[in-house]
Amino acid sequence: MTEQRDSKGSTVESPQQRRFTRRSTLAGLGALLALPAGATILSACGQRAENPQGAGTSTAGSAPGTVPASAQEIIAQRKLTPEDVTAALSTYMPSGRLDDFLLFASGGQSGQVLVIGIPSMRLLKVIGVFTPEPWQGYGFSDDTRAVLDGGKVGERTITWGDTHHPALSETNGEYDGQWLFINDKANSRLAVIDLRDFSTKQIVKNPLILSNHGGTFVTPNTDYVLEGSQYGTPLGWEYAPISEYREKYRGLLTLWRFDRQKGRIIPEESFGIEVPPYGQDLADAGKLVSDGWAFWNSFNSEMATGGDMQGKPPLEMGASQRDMDYLHVVNWKKAVDVFKAGKVDQIKGFPVIRIPTAVSEGILYLIPEPKSPHGVDVTPRGDYIVVAGKLDPHVTIYSFAKIQNAIARGTSEKDPYGIPILPFKDCVEAQVEVGLGPLHTQFDDAGFAYTSLFLDSAVARWSLGKPYRDDGWKLIQKVPVQYNVGHVAAVEGDTVKPGGQFLVSLNKWSVDRFPVIGPLCPQNLQLIDIAKDRPLRVLYDMPIGNAEPHYGQIIRRDRIKAWEVYPEIGWNPITQGKDPNGTPLGKERIERNGNRVEIWMTSVRSHFTPDLVEVNRGDQIIWHITNVEKARDATHGFALPYFNINLSLEPGKTETVSFVADAPGTYPFYCTEFCSALHLEMMGYFLVKP
Amino acid sequence: MTEQRDSKGSTVESPQQRRFTRRSTLAGLGALLALPAGATILSACGQRAENPQGAGTSTAGSAPGTVPASAQEIIAQRKLTPEDVTAALSTYMPSGRLDDFLLFASGGQSGQVLVIGIPSMRLLKVIGVFTPEPWQGYGFSDDTRAVLDGGKVGERTITWGDTHHPALSETNGEYDGQWLFINDKANSRLAVIDLRDFSTKQIVKNPLILSNHGGTFVTPNTDYVLEGSQYGTPLGWEYAPISEYREKYRGLLTLWRFDRQKGRIIPEESFGIEVPPYGQDLADAGKLVSDGWAFWNSFNSEMATGGDMQGKPPLEMGASQRDMDYLHVVNWKKAVDVFKAGKVDQIKGFPVIRIPTAVSEGILYLIPEPKSPHGVDVTPRGDYIVVAGKLDPHVTIYSFAKIQNAIARGTSEKDPYGIPILPFKDCVEAQVEVGLGPLHTQFDDAGFAYTSLFLDSAVARWSLGKPYRDDGWKLIQKVPVQYNVGHVAAVEGDTVKPGGQFLVSLNKWSVDRFPVIGPLCPQNLQLIDIAKDRPLRVLYDMPIGNAEPHYGQIIRRDRIKAWEVYPEIGWNPITQGKDPNGTPLGKERIERNGNRVEIWMTSVRSHFTPDLVEVNRGDQIIWHITNVEKARDATHGFALPYFNINLSLEPGKTETVSFVADAPGTYPFYCTEFCSALHLEMMGYFLVKP
Repeated sequence: MTEQRDSKGSTVESPQQRRFTRRSTLAGLGALLALPAGATILSACGQRAENPQGAGTSTAGSAPGTVPASAQEIIAQRKLTPEDVTAALSTYMPSGRLDDFLLFASGGQSGQVLVIGIPSMRLLKVIGVFTPEPWQGYGFSDDTRAVLDGGKVGERTITWGDTHHPALSETNGEYDGQWLFINDKANSRLAVIDLRDFSTKQIVKNPLILSNHGGTFVTPNTDYVLEGSQYGTPLGWEYAPISEYREKYRGLLTLWRFDRQKGRIIPEESFGIEVPPYGQDLADAGKLVSDGWAFWNSFNSEMATGGDMQGKPPLEMGASQRDMDYLHVVNWKKAVDVFKAGKVDQIKGFPVIRIPTAVSEGILYLIPEPKSPHGVDVTPRGDYIVVAGKLDPHVTIYSFAKIQNAIARGTSEKDPYGIPILPFKDCVEAQVEVGLGPLHTQFDDAGFAYTSLFLDSAVARWSLGKPYRDDGWKLIQKVPVQYNVGHVAAVEGDTVKPGGQFLVSLNKWSVDRFPVIGPLCPQNLQLIDIAKDRPLRVLYDMPIGNAEPHYGQIIRRDRIKAWEVYPEIGWNPITQGKDPNGTPLGKERIERNGNRVEIWMTSVRSHFTPDLVEVNRGDQIIWHITNVEKARDATHGFALPYFNINLSLEPGKTETVSFVADAPGTYPFYCTEFCSALHLEMMGYFLVKP
Repeated sequence: MTEQRDSKGSTVESPQQRRFTRRSTLAGLGALLALPAGATILSACGQRAENPQGAGTSTAGSAPGTVPASAQEIIAQRKLTPEDVTAALSTYMPSGRLDDFLLFASGGQSGQVLVIGIPSMRLLKVIGVFTPEPWQGYGFSDDTRAVLDGGKVGERTITWGDTHHPALSETNGEYDGQWLFINDKANSRLAVIDLRDFSTKQIVKNPLILSNHGGTFVTPNTDYVLEGSQYGTPLGWEYAPISEYREKYRGLLTLWRFDRQKGRIIPEESFGIEVPPYGQDLADAGKLVSDGWAFWNSFNSEMATGGDMQGKPPLEMGASQRDMDYLHVVNWKKAVDVFKAGKVDQIKGFPVIRIPTAVSEGILYLIPEPKSPHGVDVTPRGDYIVVAGKLDPHVTIYSFAKIQNAIARGTSEKDPYGIPILPFKDCVEAQVEVGLGPLHTQFDDAGFAYTSLFLDSAVARWSLGKPYRDDGWKLIQKVPVQYNVGHVAAVEGDTVKPGGQFLVSLNKWSVDRFPVIGPLCPQNLQLIDIAKDRPLRVLYDMPIGNAEPHYGQIIRRDRIKAWEVYPEIGWNPITQGKDPNGTPLGKERIERNGNRVEIWMTSVRSHFTPDLVEVNRGDQIIWHITNVEKARDATHGFALPYFNINLSLEPGKTETVSFVADAPGTYPFYCTEFCSALHLEMMGYFLVKP
């Protein structure tokens, strides 16, 4: 992929340099114009930051590791405290120095995924997922429109999403850097993102439910992606009066089969498990000793339904009346066997293991848990399950071994749907009082756990008992955050080998932390130093002014093996293979067949070929564009007014867009990426004759 | 607006606290759940960062202004150079410390505007402008859909834009912090953003042209917003063969009248000036001595049209054949008089001053300028016009006084359209050789100018001659940037009183500056220290992974007087007044009139009232939601599956969304902003009976 680059990262002779040399009569000009980023001409202006990893920006010759005299001046002038100084020095990234970790954060109701470098807390990319995004051309080409249409609800294409819980693909319980999954809570959908090019390849709609807060979570080898419904509906969401909530409304736990080779979720090999309408919430898959099991919370085992204008208590009150809700304990490997054995009902064509089958096959158990819990998080060795009940000041730690013993012993207690309820005291290992509003827990490499405290606006560090630490289950320290924190994300902090070092507190309210920019405030993602040998300290406040991240996962950068450019000219990013309409230089053409006009175009600095396209009103247009560039970052765009088209053409990519030339006119098309000195001249005309 | 806040910024008793106390039987629980960000409960966990301006995060008691011992350790461990250390200390913002400046940057083909804090280079907000954005609910409510529909092209709603040049409103040539304008190059549209709530209020479509790179620029008191077409078309873009380019294609300079009281562009009081199809480019309005005049570049006075498949030279070659293009010099105040006197043609209902009228009235002149220029920038006193010709290594400085003299003397030279061409040598004051690919110039408070060099990948500092400096027109220093820089933005650097201190280099190519995250790279906005008493130095690299900013303007934060919350409960952000459907607590209701069902709903932590809405299939639904919260940051969302709805309800806001209940079913609606500990329970059901 990088054959055209020399060892210093400069670009050597590029395709269009050759092309201009060959084709242009203005050879000198051509060479000038075609010159891409960096390269030889830069040397004319002296200093250039050719930063290898670990070196700073400067070429002024100062030795690394010394505090300059001017630093003291700046510290005084800016009134920085010693803590500010260490925080600044711990997070600043010199130009060209690459962050050690990447945070993949959901974007909430923006519908997207955010990629953030750590420790610098810089936003590297917003990946278009459920919402069309023209900078990436996402949702504007035929293929990316088809991805969005994969998530239709009924006949309706949905143009937004509510992303909550990203899940990196895992191998043996460790992140492998290959895939990312994300849910849309608002319409119960899942998306698959390929981390070779950081773009969305697939959206699937759950055919039976309409909300899925409890997604996505992967099994330790990414065989399945777990999704849990949140708000109960009849399965398939047909109308049923609210008075029939207990009888007709249900939840659903769905196991989506993922095929790594195809890079796709396979709906035909996926299935659901019917559960009561208890408002299932977050989940986690077991690992190592608990591999094969999965755990879901629920917050409304009261089955409250609101009805304020009918004089009933509001739902948030109704759902908080009992002291306990239910942790759902699911033997998903057995569920797969049961599904494969055909012990399912087909509902709207989707296979569902019914509650009685789940009970009789030993797939589904309940355990009481402190009321209205949010996070359920399995410890790195898979031996404990930590539940944070947001209306209880404790985290509750269940022992997987004890749960297994309780299952083996059996129980006569059942919920109204006949599901066995395991005794709380028989399953619990410990409870630790951490503070008000505990929500979600992550782990580090030193046997500590970190729990967010929404009402305290703090993060608690507490120690895990044996075999993690000898000092037992106890609160160690709390660090205030600004302000109300939802999830926390530590480096690989939900895997079998947490990395420690850093934790991000995903705060929901920033209030006064940032300049007043109107009533809609940014969120505040705070970076926290969790190095094991020192107290917690907040290092950095990162405003998020384009999304509401809920959860994130932090991966070591070196696990990501993304492409710098597409592997070949004429690459289709959806099939991740050669596009049959990929067009090399010199093979550009326009073909008419009746009223169907097909265009095979190329883009290269600073030209589209062909640059004039004339058609008749009513013609069906199929327009293929191949970016024949090979240099990193040599992206072009393609904008066509009126027809609502903008494509992003990264090096090597082929995109296709189809439309009807329904209005006569003179339409200038042009490159939307500032690609070269003659970028503004990179245009042409699409003429539609009346 | 802030009556419910105490002097420390904590929130005192909030509406829903009162409400729960009044209504709930679970008083203790209610008080707990309703507790908003910060406030008293936080004191339970010890330290809290109540940062006044100028103080750091820590409460550990360390005195400001000292270098901690641990700093040396971090510097050595992270191999930071002395330059890295000063850069880190110069840009780091302790938690709660507010940036001194705000950069408003266009988002390129994302269609949005970015708001970035300086010097921290943190993204504070992405304002939805031409592209629907669900986090803000932009394009999902009736009113915001109507804003987008204001920018229809023909009958087509466009769902993206290509924003290029933001313009802050000015009073006497200084930014006044009230309004922001931005263009959409792809479809020749303009948007108006209100800086009280940082949201888009209006989009207008130019009825005669389809691309407008040369926008937006304001006159010194924001009477008019200037827009220039880029790619020629017949005015109204009807079909004309490319062979008739010279005869039928035209450019258009449009003066959009802005009414501050109404906060709207008034199309009825706006008009255009016909110009030749020379590919008009960037513009700037005169100020002080040159007030009343405006200046536009052009890059294709050759009138090249491409035609590569017909054996003609590519456009970028054809447009670069002559050594000179034309600077357009426009007396816009006289044009306003001519327009008001009715000396216009109506084209598609839009008034246009034709070329012969513009010539005969002394409105339009041309001056040769070095070929293919990009930026034209008026100096702070209005006395010089700086043109950067991207294929010429000089910046060319025209004297406004000399231009006036040349106009007074008259000229016999005319272009093919009869427009007088003023002699280059009579108008030029100086030329400074700055380097390869000069594009765009900004100014500081010390008489220096800063020009971006696209091909050099550098920023040049050069001195202005008298009356700015005694050392004359000369190059002072160049600083390399990483990499190809388009525009630059200095603090208030295009106003009558530039602020100096910082400049942002808006680099188009980041290449190797950031981790590999696929073939689509972020842009790289670099912060440069331009303090007058020291050499230029790059301080910070900010990746932009969701947009391609072209130009930005940097304003002092204290000029912005944005609202923390909307002024009253039931506020309509489009009319910026009380919404007739604003609903206080207790006035919620559902009314049916035939098959029209209207809902007046409130939102408050953690409840929607009503929480159950049942209608019949086919009903027309009009749904008003008022967020009755008064506390800063107490935003709620409103998501409804299948119907493709998400609203953002900031404190006080009333939104309305209308749709047809076209499919029977059970649809859970819920709050999409994590607003409280019982946020997940903030939901209800919309039931559509078959």
